[in-house]
Amino acid sequence: MSQTASAPVTAPVTDDELVRLDALVIAEKVRRRELSPVAVVEAHLKAIARTNPAVNAICTLAAEQALETARRQEDEINRGRYVGPLAGVPVGIKDITPTAGIRTTFGSALYADNVPAEDALVVQRLKDAGCIVIGKTNTPEFAAGANTNNAIFGPTRNPWNLALSASGSTGGGAAGLRVGMFPLAEGSDLGGSLRTPAAFCGVVGLRPSPGLIPRHPVALPFATLSVAGPMARTVTDTAAMLQVMAGPSPYSPIVVPVEGRDFVAAARGGIKRALRVAYCADIAKIGVDTEIADLTRKAALALADAGAIVEEVDLDLSVGREAFIRLRGQLMVGNHLDRLGKIDKLGSNLAGNIRLGLAQSPRDVALGERGQAELFHRFRQFFEKYEALATPCTAVPPFPVERNYPETINGQPMKTYIDWVAPTFCVTLAGLPAISVPCGFNAAGLPVGLQIVGPRWGEEIVLGAAKTVEESHPVGWPAR
Amino acid sequence: MSQTASAPVTAPVTDDELVRLDALVIAEKVRRRELSPVAVVEAHLKAIARTNPAVNAICTLAAEQALETARRQEDEINRGRYVGPLAGVPVGIKDITPTAGIRTTFGSALYADNVPAEDALVVQRLKDAGCIVIGKTNTPEFAAGANTNNAIFGPTRNPWNLALSASGSTGGGAAGLRVGMFPLAEGSDLGGSLRTPAAFCGVVGLRPSPGLIPRHPVALPFATLSVAGPMARTVTDTAAMLQVMAGPSPYSPIVVPVEGRDFVAAARGGIKRALRVAYCADIAKIGVDTEIADLTRKAALALADAGAIVEEVDLDLSVGREAFIRLRGQLMVGNHLDRLGKIDKLGSNLAGNIRLGLAQSPRDVALGERGQAELFHRFRQFFEKYEALATPCTAVPPFPVERNYPETINGQPMKTYIDWVAPTFCVTLAGLPAISVPCGFNAAGLPVGLQIVGPRWGEEIVLGAAKTVEESHPVGWPAR
Repeated sequence: MSQTASAPVTAPVTDDELVRLDALVIAEKVRRRELSPVAVVEAHLKAIARTNPAVNAICTLAAEQALETARRQEDEINRGRYVGPLAGVPVGIKDITPTAGIRTTFGSALYADNVPAEDALVVQRLKDAGCIVIGKTNTPEFAAGANTNNAIFGPTRNPWNLALSASGSTGGGAAGLRVGMFPLAEGSDLGGSLRTPAAFCGVVGLRPSPGLIPRHPVALPFATLSVAGPMARTVTDTAAMLQVMAGPSPYSPIVVPVEGRDFVAAARGGIKRALRVAYCADIAKIGVDTEIADLTRKAALALADAGAIVEEVDLDLSVGREAFIRLRGQLMVGNHLDRLGKIDKLGSNLAGNIRLGLAQSPRDVALGERGQAELFHRFRQFFEKYEALATPCTAVPPFPVERNYPETINGQPMKTYIDWVAPTFCVTLAGLPAISVPCGFNAAGLPVGLQIVGPRWGEEIVLGAAKTVEESHPVGWPAR
Repeated sequence: MSQTASAPVTAPVTDDELVRLDALVIAEKVRRRELSPVAVVEAHLKAIARTNPAVNAICTLAAEQALETARRQEDEINRGRYVGPLAGVPVGIKDITPTAGIRTTFGSALYADNVPAEDALVVQRLKDAGCIVIGKTNTPEFAAGANTNNAIFGPTRNPWNLALSASGSTGGGAAGLRVGMFPLAEGSDLGGSLRTPAAFCGVVGLRPSPGLIPRHPVALPFATLSVAGPMARTVTDTAAMLQVMAGPSPYSPIVVPVEGRDFVAAARGGIKRALRVAYCADIAKIGVDTEIADLTRKAALALADAGAIVEEVDLDLSVGREAFIRLRGQLMVGNHLDRLGKIDKLGSNLAGNIRLGLAQSPRDVALGERGQAELFHRFRQFFEKYEALATPCTAVPPFPVERNYPETINGQPMKTYIDWVAPTFCVTLAGLPAISVPCGFNAAGLPVGLQIVGPRWGEEIVLGAAKTVEESHPVGWPAR
């Protein structure tokens, strides 16, 4: 792999260089008329044509729509009009997120030919910011699963080793970013779906505080476990994407104000003060791969070089393991209420999740809520002493793409198939913002993600800390 | 009844005058040393001794603790120290809210001798503001029920007619306010428990946005249907109490900022501009008592005199009726998880609620969540056109205290026993702030409450509108 980080280049830009540019660099060059939106889209379409057959990150290409938008933007820019802070920047939209006029299958055979009439709110916001939807990114059926595969489009593969999983459920987004299909990817995160694919593919994924990015349409607007969020190759691009996605909407009952918040500045600032950070190798008590523990610990401790006060602690959030399964079960029933009569037509993973929910008693769900409460208070006590938690994003490195989950964690068999995602889903339960940022490569050349968890509404803290990690852990490009 | 509103009086103040003073007047006089906190407490203790035997609003008196606090405050004030914005103001705390060293039974025989070691967060905040806890106010067992009665203390009676219900579950708070036992009452609201007792007793009760007043300890910190809130005889006192109760806490995962918000100023301001208000007589489609419809409509339309633009509309929120029962069922299971083995020792009302929850399927709960979503979107569409909804707080006038609910609504039999509370619990489901403010008396001399519902985080709007209603609808004092 080449370890050249994407940096502003001097014009003229070749197509190969162009698809390695940061989103903010593209946007600036487009704004200054140094780059044409049409050229940007064309270069990315070429990259997709070259890389997608092997990686399978994009399941539906929107080439015509993207080029048309690019031409319209170019025209507007030539007339001296401002077309948004991210004008000209291609974005991949997860295939569970409705896009007007672009096929949206939810990764489900039931919706193989579904073409929505309207954009989801988050797509509208990205478009309003000038982003150009270049295609839909592959996802497990209705985002249920941490390996990206479905009956319509098959598996998304890890760009660093095509035999391995890109993780999921935003696997298409993460893999596509890493091979230059688009510099920004929209995704969602219930159990870790913005974070684990980022870790496996060597990109950045941020799970925001519930409500910071309002979701519509959504079956259960009051539910807070699943959120939409940004993914990019750099922390600053992730912040820029978050900025245009965030902010209250009448369509969501949950309000998180953004007035006066500048996520890009927070990211760029890095760690500027004696941030109190704690590192814990195994918050979920599921074990952790030795190489991953070593790399993440080293990266966390290195934050001290930037002024942070870093301690290693033992934080036990294992109460979240059972609680998450219980609450996810009820959520699945609520989300798929209209499809309960068609469970047989859903894939086995999603159908299994729903059946698990249907089999629960009210007491089971209540036990999940109590577990969530307990986990919340453990985090509360943690944040009395610290401002951020650093911990491995995944307990295992990428596993064979044919499997839906790893067989073992650090050589030990897993207790339940979902345990390996516990380091991210335990954070989900607490309602806290979290980011996964690359922090090195294992001996097999596979990227490792450090998960940084911030306090409530603490997106600025996780972005700043992640930026400092990123600066000393360049990722580069896989050989494809 | 006397129609003299409570207004600042000139010193010296008699005990009878003192217990009719507004909380803010007491606080100001205490601050200026025109009134001694000890004299304030003593006057209220006298009022309690005189009125409580008949009304039964206070179930546990905290005379000694209150006098001790008053003496300490007096000492502090004499030393020139500031003891809080509400120093010297007696407050009644609902008996479901833990108070350190003061018996807290939750209205349940299971906890008849329970004396907590620690105050609830909301009690701490009230004490920090200078409020003096004078006693615990009666509530149905664990606040389950809209008529205040329980096996330990018996029924709280309506101050305007002792044969009638004070409603509930904050019935002790509402009744106690109206007869001068305390000028502020802390309460909680799941289905309307701060609003319906306010309507029945002729006081003001505000249900804030979930999270504005953080709750701790609480079994389910992420649950948003039940909230704590303020009750007082005047809108401005309600606002002042809200101000000291509100604001984020690490103990609650739900954040509603209060920085820069001045609820007292908002209340005092009344309606100052062309506020777009809609009146609807029957949002829940359960029917409404004719006198109540007439009085509330008249009060709502009269807001136009203050500059509001008022329209009568037909808003159908009846989808909330079934949804609320379903979601309350699951909430009951979660709240009473540790008592599921002792259901037989709970009263029939609470036990029935819990059993209803235990009998539900995951699909039933999901249907409730979907109903809540539908109701939310109806309100969203409503708020595209209007800034506030005015509607009767209760569909019926106070009913005989021996009954737990009325037999009929405007002469028609109710479909389910809880339907009469639907005008408030349908608002609960949407997560919106709502107030009940007196808007006149029916022919039987019983107060009627107008419920004003605001947009998300719109406490200022409901306080301002309620203040304008209050100005033209003085309440006065019942003859006891």
